[in-house]
Parts: sequence; C-alpha cells; structure tokens
Amino acid sequence: MKENLLAQIVWILEEVHRKKPLIHHITNYVTVNDCANIVLAIGASPIMADDIEEVETITSISSALVLNIGTLNRRTIESMLAAGKKANALNIPVILDPVGAGASELRNRTTEKLLKEIKISVLRGNMSEIRFVAGLEADTKGVDASDADLVRGTETGRAVAEKVAKELGCVTTITGATDIVSDGVRTILIENGTKLLSNVTGTGCMCTSLVGAFCGVADDTLIAAAGAILSLGIAGELAAARAGDKGNGSFHLAIIDAVSKLTAETLTGRAKIQEA
Amino acid sequence: MKENLLAQIVWILEEVHRKKPLIHHITNYVTVNDCANIVLAIGASPIMADDIEEVETITSISSALVLNIGTLNRRTIESMLAAGKKANALNIPVILDPVGAGASELRNRTTEKLLKEIKISVLRGNMSEIRFVAGLEADTKGVDASDADLVRGTETGRAVAEKVAKELGCVTTITGATDIVSDGVRTILIENGTKLLSNVTGTGCMCTSLVGAFCGVADDTLIAAAGAILSLGIAGELAAARAGDKGNGSFHLAIIDAVSKLTAETLTGRAKIQEA
Amino acid sequence: MKENLLAQIVWILEEVHRKKPLIHHITNYVTVNDCANIVLAIGASPIMADDIEEVETITSISSALVLNIGTLNRRTIESMLAAGKKANALNIPVILDPVGAGASELRNRTTEKLLKEIKISVLRGNMSEIRFVAGLEADTKGVDASDADLVRGTETGRAVAEKVAKELGCVTTITGATDIVSDGVRTILIENGTKLLSNVTGTGCMCTSLVGAFCGVADDTLIAAAGAILSLGIAGELAAARAGDKGNGSFHLAIIDAVSKLTAETLTGRAKIQEA
Repeated sequence: MKENLLAQIVWILEEVHRKKPLIHHITNYVTVNDCANIVLAIGASPIMADDIEEVETITSISSALVLNIGTLNRRTIESMLAAGKKANALNIPVILDPVGAGASELRNRTTEKLLKEIKISVLRGNMSEIRFVAGLEADTKGVDASDADLVRGTETGRAVAEKVAKELGCVTTITGATDIVSDGVRTILIENGTKLLSNVTGTGCMCTSLVGAFCGVADDTLIAAAGAILSLGIAGELAAARAGDKGNGSFHLAIIDAVSKLTAETLTGRAKIQEA
Repeated sequence: MKENLLAQIVWILEEVHRKKPLIHHITNYVTVNDCANIVLAIGASPIMADDIEEVETITSISSALVLNIGTLNRRTIESMLAAGKKANALNIPVILDPVGAGASELRNRTTEKLLKEIKISVLRGNMSEIRFVAGLEADTKGVDASDADLVRGTETGRAVAEKVAKELGCVTTITGATDIVSDGVRTILIENGTKLLSNVTGTGCMCTSLVGAFCGVADDTLIAAAGAILSLGIAGELAAARAGDKGNGSFHLAIIDAVSKLTAETLTGRAKIQEA
Repeated sequence: MKENLLAQIVWILEEVHRKKPLIHHITNYVTVNDCANIVLAIGASPIMADDIEEVETITSISSALVLNIGTLNRRTIESMLAAGKKANALNIPVILDPVGAGASELRNRTTEKLLKEIKISVLRGNMSEIRFVAGLEADTKGVDASDADLVRGTETGRAVAEKVAKELGCVTTITGATDIVSDGVRTILIENGTKLLSNVTGTGCMCTSLVGAFCGVADDTLIAAAGAILSLGIAGELAAARAGDKGNGSFHLAIIDAVSKLTAETLTGRAKIQEA
C-alpha cells in the first residue's frame, strides 16, 4: 500500500523533472519570490501574471493554475475568477490557497466566490482556514492556524477535510503537525515535516505551489497533492538538519536547497505516509 | 540607568516571545518578505493586507500597525488612512516609516497627510527623511540618507528628533551610525550596528517592523522603539561577524538568523545604549 | 582588443563604486528584492517607485531607468511611459527588459508601445523575447527561452540582435549560453556564466538591473551593457563554485555575495569576452 503510493509519487516527481510544467500563479507579493524559486527547485517553471488582460492567455499555456489570496485586492480577484474559468474550460487543474480565510469579510467572501464559481482541484490550507471553508467555528489568528483550532487534533481535522472534500468535490488538504489529504473517499496522512516550517513566512504558499507543479503533470490529484506536501515535509526535515541551530534565515535557504536536491531515494527512504 | 533601561527592553523582548503579537503591515513590495521574516524571527506574527475592504478588520485583530510608504500608490494610501484611523480608535500603536520622504511630492504629501490625520506612536526614518518631516532642509537621495544630511552629525540629529517628537507628540527615531530615539523629553542613544546594514535593502524597513513587534506588547513606546532598534543593531553586529568577508547575501541571511537567536543575555551583554 | 574592452569595463565598474548612481526601477514584484540587492551589491543605489504621480520626479533624480514588464498591469504601464518620456527628455538612459514578450497580447502590445514611444538605450532579454521583438517566429514558453528558439544557436541569435539593434537604434542584448551584445555595428560575445543561473528566478532581471547601474555612469552603452552582463556571468561562475552541490538556495545567495565582492582583478582574470 505505502509502497504503491510512494511509487506513484516518485513517478510524478520524475515526471515534473521530465516535463518541466509551466505553473501560472496569481499570488501574493509577500512570498511570491519563494513560490517562484520552489517551483524552479522542484524542476518546474513558474510564471506570475495577474492582469485581467493577460491571465486567460497565460493560463492557457500553463499546466496548472495556483490561486493564493494572501494579499488580495479587488483587481486580482477579478483576474483569479477569469483565469480560473479559463482553466476549467481547458481542464487545467486549479489549486486554491485561501490564506487567512476567516480573518476578514473580504477573504471569506472571496474564498466562497472562488469555490462557487470555479471548479477547484485541490484546496490547501491550515486547520483554521479549512475549518472556515467547512462552515465550522474557526478561530483564525491572521494567516496562521490558531492554537484553539489546532488542539482539536488530527481526528477532527480528518473529518473536516473529508467533509469539505465531499461537499466541494475537490481534494482537500490540511497541513500541520500531521498533514491530511482527502478526496472524500480516500484519505492520506503524512507525518513528515518540522515545527520550524512555521518560523519562515510562505512555507504554506510554497507547499501550494509545489501542489501546482505536481498536479501539472498528473491526473490523480489526490496522489499529486500528497506527493507535493510530502516533498516539502521531507525538505523541511533535511533543512532543519542542515541549518542546525543557525537560525531562521539558514533554515529558509536550506528548504530551497533541499527541494532542488530531492531524489526518489530520499523521498522513499524518509516518507512517513499512509492511506488510512 | 542603563541597567534599568536594559531590564525593560529584555522584558519587552520576552513579552514578544510569550504573546506572539500579530503585526499588521501595509508596506512596500520590495522588502515585504524580509519584514515578514524578521517579525517571525523576533517571535511575533506578521500579516500583510492592503485592500481598503479589509484593512480595518485586519488592524482590529492586530497588536500594532506598521505603515511603510516605500512603494506608495494611490490605492494603498487610502488603505493606510483607513487602517490608521481604526488603530487610533482602538488604541493600537501605529508605526510610520516615511521611506524616501523628501524625494517626491507624492511621498511628501502622503507623509504629511498620514501625520496629520493619524496619531502616530513611533516615526522611524533616516536622517534625510526625518529632516524632511521636521521641515528642515533635507537633501534626500532616493531612499538613503544623503551624505550632506549625515555630516550634520548626531548632535544636530538629536535636536531634530526632539523637535519632531515634541511637535508631533510621537516617539521619533533617526537610525544611522548613532541611533536616536526621543519622545521630546527623554532621548536614548544607541551605538550598536554596522555600516554593512546599508548594503542590504530593507534593513530600515525591517527595523520598523521590529518596532511594530515591540510596540505590540509594551505601553512604553519610547523603550519599545529603542529596544527594537537595539535588537537590529546587535543582530547586525553578530551577522557581520558570522558572514565575515563572504558578501552581502551572506550578511543578509545572517541578520535574520541573528534576530531569531537573540537572547536576553546577548542583548544585555552587547548593548551600547544610554539615556542622555 | 580584448584588453581595451576589459579596461573600459573595469573603469565603468570602478565608476559605479565611486559615483553610487541612483537607479530607478519600475519592475515586477517577483524579483524586485533581488534587483534592489544586486544594485546595492555592485555599489549603486536602487529606488523602486511606480505610481504615476511620482515616477517622473524619481526618474529626474536618477542616473538610469529600468523598465521590467515581468508582472505588468495597466497601472504601471502608464507609469512606465511617463517615466520613460521624462528620462528621454533628460537624456537619462532607459533599459527595457521585455519579460515574457511573446507570451501574451498584453506583453506584446506593451513591449511594442514602449519601444515606439520611448527611446530605449538597452534592450535585454532572452532569445525568445528578442526574437519576438525582431518580428520573427518565437516560441516563448512563459518567461524562459524555449528550447526551439535556443537550438537556433549563437549565429542566428547574433543576426537577430544586430537586426533589432539597427532597426530600433538601441543596444540589443540576448543573454544565454553565449551572451550577445550589439549596437548594430559592433557586436560583443561573452562566454561566461553557468546553466545554474536558470535555476533561480530573476537572474535575468538582476542582469537588467546591473545594466542599469553600469549605464548610469557610462556614455558608451554598448560597453556598459557588456560589462554588466559579464559581471553577472562571472558572479554566476563564482557562485557555482562556492555553492557546489548544496542547491539552488545556496547558489542564489552566492550570486549576491559574488557581485558584492567583484573586483577589477576577478573581472579581468575570468572574462571570456570578445568583439567579433
């Protein structure tokens, strides 16, 4: 089971290396450089474009579309909707990162609008963000999951992910101490990663971008999403080992290094993943 | 005197670690990633949001608001004013970094408007920027303090800071070879730091963000501002020692590392600070 | 010949160190931090400003203007035109990086408009982008040169660069395995650099920013552009040697380090440059 899962993930990773898919991002200006560099590091090619006059064209030549609402504004909401609809028409997977959903009406309303008007392939967020999407009580603290939401634990998180996945018909992932990836029927749990990932801004965004890269070459979005999240978790572990006690800057750099050096062997050897 | 000052600063640093305050930024897109990462490194939590439809909400859930005019545009000016007024209404400290004030009418007019319509808690800039605010002849060269302004020296700078602090009723800081922090009555001088800080873009912005983090947990904004500036100065010294002769990139990374590893002991041991 | 060329380039590099020219950028939000840091690393001073109300003023106090269409939007197109015209009026060199030209109507139309309404001093792009400008068949894949365009080789590239340079009356550069710099009469070829440069986002943008810094102090834009491109190529080689097998993040950082440590000796010793 685990072997089969890993074999599929390794194939997707190698397919990214072979095909170098173009990943269109409409994303925030805080972490956009890291998103571009993580996409290059995994072997894919990023393009960032958010003007309404070109987003449909750029989506058309891309293999996946990543929508990230981290620094939302009215201009880019319109662009996200247009690009998303074009992606749907062309059967290009759309990945949504509802950064800070629950924290403001604008983010809530936009998340709802995107989910209603666009067929999302993968939704990736933290516990607070996905609880908001699920219509549950969520205690968002800015862009990080709140302690109150986290204490509810993996079992509850799993139920939330499965509920959202079923209702929206999309792969739903909640990243955290245990990463949860579900399509409503099958659920994958990943135990890789390190708490240090929350010390650097944009590791969630980078994870979403990697999901874009994996989905850009694979039809099985559940496995693709799990593979991308697994890759970042393992890169985090390797980065923590290499950065040691040096500090956040060294750890940040080491994440990009580790993703750019990720091999099938490392992935297979370190994966703590199960379908359960 | 110095011991008392340092004890207060250490308490604020530890309070940041304990409370992890949320710091709302409306800032420029050049250095925004570093601002987010420095806030995380000191133990606080950043959120960047600039759309008029959400800035008031985001400010409401935050412990401090940082306004940075580095890449000003008409859209975000409106947001800065709305967020600032909300912060004032809720007694949330507002920190203003008038990047490049003096260099264009837009920056001049906006700085004046922000200072007039919003009660600023801490104003942080370089010598040219604060001279402009003081209504003095300033010879701004882009976003860096000009040599002509710097040559006027610490004594003059101190008089400028005290004048502005009194007139605006806000803590005014001028960072440079000697950092000056004044509320118009009390003035603190800091001799930490390194010239290398001017080799990396955004060290001023990062300093302002740290002021936000410190002000987010402390009522005494004079001491909070001094503590934040002291922290970055010491981090700069440690970074210079570690990066050695490697170059600007290594020094940049080492600043984030040093802030993330800053302890009460390091702070106390290295501080060259005095109320004078 | 080579000695003479190198002597001129070394003089320009030292002139950048002496004069610290202010370089105005209207650029994309993906790589803007790296652009600012590379400009500081070479010894110049960056300023990023894109609002229509201040771009003319900021251009007026600058020594060069860099226009980069990487994340184009309607607001900044207007600003690019205004700043460019002001630069022309004041005889300030304008450097254009037509990022992704060929990939969307918006980028195509904007590139054409900028080239028509503004006198560009240096045009810097990859093979696909410059082929598009030349009105040739170009097979742009996002923001990277396509394999189909690259396979056409240096000889064809040279012909393209010379054609564009003649037609537009501006120095035209195509960076790639061999960098080509031509004013239509004289053509310089550079063999420095490393394939690793394409693993990090923004190395093209950084190159353009360096061209801005060099053109900010030199009248001979052909030599200035060649010197800037040579500098980044050599920095890439040094960075590759230092980062070794660590990965993309380490290589990225080492580029900034190498540019900040670049000396006349290193430049002269490593240059593989010829006028041919």
